[in-house]
Amino acid sequence: MTASRTIQIEPLTREAYAPFGQVIETAGAHHYPINGGMTERYHDLAKVELGGVHARPLVSIARGQPYALPLTLNMVERHPLGSQAFYPLSQRPFLSIVAPDEGGIPGLPRAFLAAAGQGINMAMNTWHAVLTPLGETADFLIIDRGGDGNNLEEYFFAEPYLVVATGSILY
Amino acid sequence: MTASRTIQIEPLTREAYAPFGQVIETAGAHHYPINGGMTERYHDLAKVELGGVHARPLVSIARGQPYALPLTLNMVERHPLGSQAFYPLSQRPFLSIVAPDEGGIPGLPRAFLAAAGQGINMAMNTWHAVLTPLGETADFLIIDRGGDGNNLEEYFFAEPYLVVATGSILY
Repeated sequence: MTASRTIQIEPLTREAYAPFGQVIETAGAHHYPINGGMTERYHDLAKVELGGVHARPLVSIARGQPYALPLTLNMVERHPLGSQAFYPLSQRPFLSIVAPDEGGIPGLPRAFLAAAGQGINMAMNTWHAVLTPLGETADFLIIDRGGDGNNLEEYFFAEPYLVVATGSILY
Repeated sequence: MTASRTIQIEPLTREAYAPFGQVIETAGAHHYPINGGMTERYHDLAKVELGGVHARPLVSIARGQPYALPLTLNMVERHPLGSQAFYPLSQRPFLSIVAPDEGGIPGLPRAFLAAAGQGINMAMNTWHAVLTPLGETADFLIIDRGGDGNNLEEYFFAEPYLVVATGSILY
């Protein structure tokens, strides 16, 4: 494993994640009171994209087994017909590993560490790794796309990447 | 307050809730492995309904202040253009108070107590009370409908209902 194949984990922020999708979180979100002031609504936090034929939004739950760090990244995938949101149902951390597209294949991946209360919505056709909880099995609410057509493309790296934590990532 | 205006809280089950929408939960759901077996997907748990013009799914977060029991129910509302899902982001209990439609006005309300891990998706145009966490402030992920048109109808009861717990409801 050469040093150039090593990916340092970085914090998940709206700004850093913008090329790949949205961070779903109350911090910094537009919000307003509803229900006679008893509820605060943090409004419209994800751009749900529904491409192709007979598209409809799906609500599902994913129960993901955990990964340990450092993590070997062999492949990424993307969904050409729809966005895909994951919101954690626990306070446990997880990674969102994504990559820019470079002429139809993934460029250098980036690994974002979600803090408690942060979910993500990956934009349609964004290269990403599989669901990556850290430390413990964790549940996530998923909002993605159902419908006709092939909504999955996979890419296997000729040489794997190593995703590593720097400093003190607690998980 | 006459006895006939008293509503007993009942457990939230798929079968009992079917006239009003879906219970979002892993128990009893269709599921299958993804991500090379590392993740289990509990698939397509809610029927997201998007009526009217320029409709699109919205993902939001609601932070609801708690209610105490017994609870006085003065009004219900409904959304004629879309479904509305609430999934709790904590293990705290909440009530889903809903009512059948009887000729354009709400019939006798029912109050369902969600257990940990249960969310709900209220079908389009279902009469319901406001978000009702019990005991503590609680966050919920919402999936509902954005778009044009008036998506809110309210109904105020001439005489309020009293929602009461029987036996030992812990909250």
